[in-house]
Amino acid sequence: MNRMNGYDVEDLSVGMSAPLARTITEADIVPFVGASGDNNAVQINQEFAATTPFKSCIRHGMLTASVISAAIANKLSGPGTICARARSSRRQGVPGIPSGQTVSVREMLAKKRLVWLTRACTVTGTVVITGEALVKVGSRG
Amino acid sequence: MNRMNGYDVEDLSVGMSAPLARTITEADIVPFVGASGDNNAVQINQEFAATTPFKSCIRHGMLTASVISAAIANKLSGPGTICARARSSRRQGVPGIPSGQTVSVREMLAKKRLVWLTRACTVTGTVVITGEALVKVGSRG
Repeated sequence: MNRMNGYDVEDLSVGMSAPLARTITEADIVPFVGASGDNNAVQINQEFAATTPFKSCIRHGMLTASVISAAIANKLSGPGTICARARSSRRQGVPGIPSGQTVSVREMLAKKRLVWLTRACTVTGTVVITGEALVKVGSRG
Repeated sequence: MNRMNGYDVEDLSVGMSAPLARTITEADIVPFVGASGDNNAVQINQEFAATTPFKSCIRHGMLTASVISAAIANKLSGPGTICARARSSRRQGVPGIPSGQTVSVREMLAKKRLVWLTRACTVTGTVVITGEALVKVGSRG
């Protein structure tokens, strides 16, 4: 581990996985809307959202995806990780409350200190966002 | 336009484009970190960031991507848009200050009221994030 308690390349191997179980609440949405400017009616206007197939406000996909990035920053590969490339795909609106985020090591390019991570976010077991990230980690070598 | 001043499907055509020129400032980062929990050192710890190739704190890619979603929500196709699917790719860390976001209509599936949008974010002219989104819009028909 590095001095910030994040994983060095020597600590990682393919198949390692870390969950971050964090429910996204109303209290997260207000600052996210302020920071991003994304005040889409389907996410913040209950009256409009009731006219959509979702029947109620849905969570911002980007906020949900951002919490997965938090799982990388805080869990795997943890503090000190530098994200070189990232991709995420949202498969549908998020009508429930996202509560499960998982990050796993898919591939190691150890000499370059690069690691491919896969990530997913679930709502009551259904995967709503998938993605991958290429991250650079430290080394004790 | 719909009653929230967003585009209906009848108002849209391939090639339409909308810019959102918004600089992401320090004041956006604090609430974003609070909402997402993404407190990665390279983004919030100046001392650590100085040891990386970036030499200084970089912006959260997810915050940058979220501002592009704001461009969809506020500009094209505007209020009332429901995002059915979204994908974004970050090509590198964002060392400068993201200031340009552009959304364009790539393809229309008018009968289904579905529209493929492409989106991009630039830092002083260099594209750092690209993406696409499939959105559902309203109709006057």
